[in-house]
Amino acid sequence: MPKTSSAQGRDFLSTGYSPPAEGAKAFFDKSHINFPLGFLDLHSVPEYFWIPAAYRPSSWSVDFSEMASGQLARAEALACSGCRHACHVMLYADTKTQLFGRIPIKHIILMQMRFDGLLGFPGGLVNPSKETLEAGLSRELSEELGVAIPISAENHMESCHAPASSPSSSHLITHFYVKKMEEEQIMEVERAAASTAADHGLEVLGMVRVPLYTMKGGGGLASFLSHSFIGNARSQLVDSLLRFNLVSPKELHKALTHSLKIHTHTAEDLQAALVLTEVKRKQF
Amino acid sequence: MPKTSSAQGRDFLSTGYSPPAEGAKAFFDKSHINFPLGFLDLHSVPEYFWIPAAYRPSSWSVDFSEMASGQLARAEALACSGCRHACHVMLYADTKTQLFGRIPIKHIILMQMRFDGLLGFPGGLVNPSKETLEAGLSRELSEELGVAIPISAENHMESCHAPASSPSSSHLITHFYVKKMEEEQIMEVERAAASTAADHGLEVLGMVRVPLYTMKGGGGLASFLSHSFIGNARSQLVDSLLRFNLVSPKELHKALTHSLKIHTHTAEDLQAALVLTEVKRKQF
Repeated sequence: MPKTSSAQGRDFLSTGYSPPAEGAKAFFDKSHINFPLGFLDLHSVPEYFWIPAAYRPSSWSVDFSEMASGQLARAEALACSGCRHACHVMLYADTKTQLFGRIPIKHIILMQMRFDGLLGFPGGLVNPSKETLEAGLSRELSEELGVAIPISAENHMESCHAPASSPSSSHLITHFYVKKMEEEQIMEVERAAASTAADHGLEVLGMVRVPLYTMKGGGGLASFLSHSFIGNARSQLVDSLLRFNLVSPKELHKALTHSLKIHTHTAEDLQAALVLTEVKRKQF
Repeated sequence: MPKTSSAQGRDFLSTGYSPPAEGAKAFFDKSHINFPLGFLDLHSVPEYFWIPAAYRPSSWSVDFSEMASGQLARAEALACSGCRHACHVMLYADTKTQLFGRIPIKHIILMQMRFDGLLGFPGGLVNPSKETLEAGLSRELSEELGVAIPISAENHMESCHAPASSPSSSHLITHFYVKKMEEEQIMEVERAAASTAADHGLEVLGMVRVPLYTMKGGGGLASFLSHSFIGNARSQLVDSLLRFNLVSPKELHKALTHSLKIHTHTAEDLQAALVLTEVKRKQF
């Protein structure tokens, strides 16, 4: 049984960050001092390490939109001794395979369905006082994917603040990595994740590939982006698609616009399911 | 390379069904006559077999809310010789495993990330003039999951109309099945789906388990239900949870209510990603 679990933070500016007022003030005013709780045992309170804004009491709402993007230098991030740290990685490979023999798939990107029902990248909490960020991430990957994947500092993309889960808990910093692999290595990861990985069926409910193409009817990337993601995982994906030239800016913009449309339709569908449940639950 | 692909229809009443006016009229006024195109080769037009409402031109919008639920008897469904038929199955098992050693997982339900970026149940198109619905479904499962899973008429739950994708295409009827298995069999399905299945990485982007629990912070079933699903897959899941007593009506209702909240928050997050892309695409 692994000692830590997955968590990802949010980019302040891009996600309407609304942390608990007290905790946030403590962090920004006194970031040189340690936090009282130190490194939490998340086995006992796994749902506390990252509570999406939708779950937080409205009393926590603080507008930080005037702040910087929340990104910080790696050294600066590691200097915060009272902070907790989470590392996640986007593993990807090029492929020549075509869907239906005619739609180029181009790239395979791995994400996962997490224990909390949200989509995210593989990874989890790391304790920099005991291991390097990269060694900790590799350890998490072994647990979640069932294979050893060496991650180096060169794979590091960005570090940023995530909101504290409650005023009394320590602050979370998320570190994001990207690593390119061979197609056969990605397939080996998928096989191991569904068979030998310790976290299979527990912290990880399944690995999924991200469709980067757009079909005639609009299906593909747009539909995928309309799902629910943990923390800033969707932004990390979108950023990486642009940064590594995996999808053109034009295509991506079109997909995101379409994605909002699909998302609106999903709300109607969800509302209908709720109404249907009202009716059905009287029958069973 | 398989000859057919996955498709699922929508329950008229529950999903705000808005089919192309002409095709719908043709079906409801002249359901005794054959349709011109018969069984389509979906390899050439895979995105045509089911176009979600969000993708359809607004000129197709017709209000069918006064109609019946779209369900029909199996014999009645098979009598429509010009119709296309799609069969899908919910495979599930009981489990004694606990998440973090304390949250009972209770049941394992398998769904999949489809090639079109939406979540759905395994299955696909079946041609009743060449094979029984159940034999066709078993064939689809072999392609998608890599193992032979016998499905019998006893596993059949319901059949219902799906909207025609265009006025000229033949009408689609979806048949839904549920099959209970042993935990070890489900794990074998997951292993094969990620390794030997012909459709892996093509029609299927990954298998995922459905979290049925609700964590303290609200994560679990509620988050999962807030994703985007093909056709009426979300309703089929919700119906089955009640029908087989896998989640109590009270818990399910709470999860769906919470799900709508998460969904609303996702819209903000998606909008933020779109804005961020506008900024970022000028940098790359």
